[in-house]
Amino acid sequence: MKVGIINVTGYAGCELVRILRHHPEVEIASVTGRSAAGQSLGQVFPHLDNMGLNVTAELSDDVALVFSALPHKASAEACIPLLERGVKVVDISADFRLKQADVYREWYGVEHPDPTYLEEAVYGLTELNRPAVSDARLVANPGCYPTSAILALTPAIASGFIGSDVIVDSKSGVSGAGRTLSMATHFSEVNENVMAYSLGGHRHLPEISQELDAAAAANQPVNLTFLTHLIPMTRGILSSCYAPLRPDIAQDPDASQRVRQLYREFYADEPFVQVTDAPPQTKQTLGNNQCLIHPVVDPRTNRLIVISCLDNLVKGAAGQAVQNMNLMCGYPEQTALESLAVYP
Amino acid sequence: MKVGIINVTGYAGCELVRILRHHPEVEIASVTGRSAAGQSLGQVFPHLDNMGLNVTAELSDDVALVFSALPHKASAEACIPLLERGVKVVDISADFRLKQADVYREWYGVEHPDPTYLEEAVYGLTELNRPAVSDARLVANPGCYPTSAILALTPAIASGFIGSDVIVDSKSGVSGAGRTLSMATHFSEVNENVMAYSLGGHRHLPEISQELDAAAAANQPVNLTFLTHLIPMTRGILSSCYAPLRPDIAQDPDASQRVRQLYREFYADEPFVQVTDAPPQTKQTLGNNQCLIHPVVDPRTNRLIVISCLDNLVKGAAGQAVQNMNLMCGYPEQTALESLAVYP
Amino acid sequence: MKVGIINVTGYAGCELVRILRHHPEVEIASVTGRSAAGQSLGQVFPHLDNMGLNVTAELSDDVALVFSALPHKASAEACIPLLERGVKVVDISADFRLKQADVYREWYGVEHPDPTYLEEAVYGLTELNRPAVSDARLVANPGCYPTSAILALTPAIASGFIGSDVIVDSKSGVSGAGRTLSMATHFSEVNENVMAYSLGGHRHLPEISQELDAAAAANQPVNLTFLTHLIPMTRGILSSCYAPLRPDIAQDPDASQRVRQLYREFYADEPFVQVTDAPPQTKQTLGNNQCLIHPVVDPRTNRLIVISCLDNLVKGAAGQAVQNMNLMCGYPEQTALESLAVYP
Amino acid sequence: MKVGIINVTGYAGCELVRILRHHPEVEIASVTGRSAAGQSLGQVFPHLDNMGLNVTAELSDDVALVFSALPHKASAEACIPLLERGVKVVDISADFRLKQADVYREWYGVEHPDPTYLEEAVYGLTELNRPAVSDARLVANPGCYPTSAILALTPAIASGFIGSDVIVDSKSGVSGAGRTLSMATHFSEVNENVMAYSLGGHRHLPEISQELDAAAAANQPVNLTFLTHLIPMTRGILSSCYAPLRPDIAQDPDASQRVRQLYREFYADEPFVQVTDAPPQTKQTLGNNQCLIHPVVDPRTNRLIVISCLDNLVKGAAGQAVQNMNLMCGYPEQTALESLAVYP
Repeated sequence: MKVGIINVTGYAGCELVRILRHHPEVEIASVTGRSAAGQSLGQVFPHLDNMGLNVTAELSDDVALVFSALPHKASAEACIPLLERGVKVVDISADFRLKQADVYREWYGVEHPDPTYLEEAVYGLTELNRPAVSDARLVANPGCYPTSAILALTPAIASGFIGSDVIVDSKSGVSGAGRTLSMATHFSEVNENVMAYSLGGHRHLPEISQELDAAAAANQPVNLTFLTHLIPMTRGILSSCYAPLRPDIAQDPDASQRVRQLYREFYADEPFVQVTDAPPQTKQTLGNNQCLIHPVVDPRTNRLIVISCLDNLVKGAAGQAVQNMNLMCGYPEQTALESLAVYP
Repeated sequence: MKVGIINVTGYAGCELVRILRHHPEVEIASVTGRSAAGQSLGQVFPHLDNMGLNVTAELSDDVALVFSALPHKASAEACIPLLERGVKVVDISADFRLKQADVYREWYGVEHPDPTYLEEAVYGLTELNRPAVSDARLVANPGCYPTSAILALTPAIASGFIGSDVIVDSKSGVSGAGRTLSMATHFSEVNENVMAYSLGGHRHLPEISQELDAAAAANQPVNLTFLTHLIPMTRGILSSCYAPLRPDIAQDPDASQRVRQLYREFYADEPFVQVTDAPPQTKQTLGNNQCLIHPVVDPRTNRLIVISCLDNLVKGAAGQAVQNMNLMCGYPEQTALESLAVYP
Repeated sequence: MKVGIINVTGYAGCELVRILRHHPEVEIASVTGRSAAGQSLGQVFPHLDNMGLNVTAELSDDVALVFSALPHKASAEACIPLLERGVKVVDISADFRLKQADVYREWYGVEHPDPTYLEEAVYGLTELNRPAVSDARLVANPGCYPTSAILALTPAIASGFIGSDVIVDSKSGVSGAGRTLSMATHFSEVNENVMAYSLGGHRHLPEISQELDAAAAANQPVNLTFLTHLIPMTRGILSSCYAPLRPDIAQDPDASQRVRQLYREFYADEPFVQVTDAPPQTKQTLGNNQCLIHPVVDPRTNRLIVISCLDNLVKGAAGQAVQNMNLMCGYPEQTALESLAVYP
Repeated sequence: MKVGIINVTGYAGCELVRILRHHPEVEIASVTGRSAAGQSLGQVFPHLDNMGLNVTAELSDDVALVFSALPHKASAEACIPLLERGVKVVDISADFRLKQADVYREWYGVEHPDPTYLEEAVYGLTELNRPAVSDARLVANPGCYPTSAILALTPAIASGFIGSDVIVDSKSGVSGAGRTLSMATHFSEVNENVMAYSLGGHRHLPEISQELDAAAAANQPVNLTFLTHLIPMTRGILSSCYAPLRPDIAQDPDASQRVRQLYREFYADEPFVQVTDAPPQTKQTLGNNQCLIHPVVDPRTNRLIVISCLDNLVKGAAGQAVQNMNLMCGYPEQTALESLAVYP
């Protein structure tokens, strides 16, 4: 199958190339980039020199599926004509993640180019929406933070094990901010430094709320505080999630075991989610498509604590996108995604 | 005044030398270290070569005040004879921080060498205990995490602005783990990595609870979850604290301003605490004795979020110890502590 | 084919597992480790948990080829009995790299367990010794620094383009020092720091000299200064090599092009060596088996400068070892070694 | 004395504020910055908030000495009118370092605004030009790399101990590239990475050559190769310098001691240069004005190796500038420069 990558020149774009190179059924037929059009991919990314690809301004016509790694709004504008031509789309931007156009407007500050697609688009957190992804022609690839938070909390929320007061404290490496230059990603400013940012509300918040509320179903919607921090490393997100246990669970002397068991069963058949016995570390996922999850009960407060971690460019972006493509196109879900973490 | 440093060979010990060198009233008369006894201080720490100090096995007799940077239990055993000889002591270990011997036993796994000193010892978070520190002969220097958490939460707790459900999510650089070798501080394991640790309960938890409960006074004691994370940097702690606002405060349309004002007034006269308008960063405190605090209200959830940060080896250890010494000995509190942060 | 890994618990050992997992012809049948014997591999390295391997004290008997990642001397002692049983060996230690027993004694401070193997052993820098590696039953896997230096300088030395006064200034990430704890690899000591080390002579020096002298053949042996530096990163070596150009080459106005052409031709058929047009960066090789080489002439001094870089744990250790195994066992040389660099 | 800082918004500018704050004879009366004019200094640099300074577009008229931290050319254009008004100037840019206008044009690509000042300007490497600095009204503050290289090599060159074939391999932290955004200083590109850059010739090369040739006096001018590398840390430069020993020195069995002694005597009275017995590390100079130098003889090749290191923003920029100011204005040379390194 021939695929295209729109805006290959960002970190998600070049990570797609790295992963797809090992996919036996896929040929990268076309890669685009605005400022780099006309250059070879190796001029932009020397480590991809031997791929023999050239960056063009426009996609070629022969692609059956396209990954868009454009910024929001521009991405929807590029994807919609493709959909109308019958091309399948995995959109890595935020443009098709939120179900409600007014929420999109509130958080992204622009009108959605065509809200009619919001209903059709499938939120591509494969573990939670596998059948819908399989049937989709438009998949909204989840954000990196939401992937870590939603996978960490869904078993507890869907089972009713926790109350609605949820706090997610996330720590991210700097590559999550992309390849665009800014003072906040200038080496001398970020190195040997930790900061909280977006205290007024990170754009991934409504996405997390939407999906956790869906998991809560008839239960009370979550009352979510979500705070993001920038950490001096390149790749990786670790989310620490806090919520009160339901009193009857808390009173169970084996509450911690019971919660662990719940999580193990929930993710028993998942190749890319592991429920761990020890607290996980982002380094254990560097370069691969795993999400590691560690639920534990704080016995002093009867709170559930869930630690989750992943590589923001793989399970949090390009790897998740390939996982979605595999399902959409009938390939085995793990194809091209089996590499182990690069440790240390 | 002649002072001594017990166990100068750790990071708190050598940081004391760096700071005290600029103190016009203090002479470092004696520095000890077990494995390094007999060496010059410059052999252990080349950057301190020109101090002209030698590491000895025992303190000299002429010191009027001693800083102990020994591990717990060993520190109490070394300090008590000094107190009985009339020497003032600032203990940087945890040995005199907890008021109750059984809590000490529970968390540190040993019997306290002499619990009668627990009552006398003053918890040396100067901003909160200034008169007692001034009169003390034994000051328990606070832990690095507790300093960041207690300063962040005390104004809100003492004023009754928040409820008792408190979560403190702290991120620390690696120097907090000291100079002793371990796999958890091996460069290749820590670099490009973030992890949560001590999920079963960090030893600084009872210290934070004790002091926050004291601040709560007649109000309900705090129901504290405290979780620590290791970050790939050398110095710095950033704590993100979460608690529900009291409903009447939350309903105030100017809740955020009101809280900010509360904090500003609480710390109005403090030279080493700054209430900031923007989220603070650990780099803004690197090498100096400041604690930066930023309270903000999450309007979606009516939670108070307080971000605090400091340098774990300065305000979180050696700088705080010198601040305490200044008060105990009648020197101006800021002496030797006025340097600006080393940025970037 | 069943293979074994002796001392899987170091960084070279676990990197072998990561790479071999994708080898279609190889089954890891046995992994050993002294202190970890009896544990599952996942207890030692959580990211390898799903390999289903157990660490044992002794190798199983069914392996046809063994990788030894033991320290020197212990490695030879473990490998020799295997050879005598007909097992093929790739030794990642330094025990079979030097051809002369007295040089080994001088640099490693111990007698070689059995110098008769020094002659038989093939120095496994595949690009330079392909036929011999193909026929070998004992391959000495090159050191990480020597791989970067020898590949960088051999074309110029073998062609007689440069004189014998050679300086190699190498910069290495910290994983090169292994997983054993030491003050020199303690995070807080290494981070935000650069130092030169082993100024009296690094153990990789005689190995580099031996191989460069062999390349020089009838020409004068190299007069080599080799200096190593520790850099605050986990993986990667970059070597900057300096040597005087032969006067007639230097006078050629196209000297730089001529040298570049020499290198391109020398490595024209090599899948794992790339001669680059721009100065290479270690990040361009992170996690893969490439060595990037950039020769350039300094027109002010008529010196040749060659920059080379690689991942010390892949092309500098485990990847090179698998490349050797592929040749020794008749598999295509690139098998299991085709992944792209993990960038950024 | 009232001083001004032109372009306070870069790293050299804010480092000047950090250092001068502790100078008992100096008042920072005026700080300028183009884009930040109208803001308080605390808005640009929160860690300098309590300095109470405002950034203006123009200097005030009452300053007796000005530090210029502008880029080249703009700096000369700003400094010359000040000189003509009788204001003393320490120029941190490269504008007055080179003695020859044509060399300036060749390396900086612009005409010098007024070459008549090139003769008057004193190259402000205080240790080598103390009397001239004392009498100067215009001091050209040396570059960070040149400071490390010139201090490392001058004793050996001035004494004729080494031949003219000199190689300087320098490793720098990223803050040397300043606060201007670029892909080469984007965190995700620099972190976990080492690269050589400016292989065609770094602009600091002619400055090093000029000063080493001056030290060589009647001897042969140096045949200098100078190569720079970017290291994933914020502050610090380490230079590894290589040169052939004069044969009679090399044959001395105590050559290493003799060289060490030469260096010790050369810098015997220097407060800011230390000749060390062990290889120095950049961390040992973090935040202070020291340059550490370690000369050693490679006995296999009879080459001299000199390792030097310093903090590029202090001894390599702002600290050196204050040292120059102290001399120019008759203050003790060490004033405001006595702080110890911030270690670890």
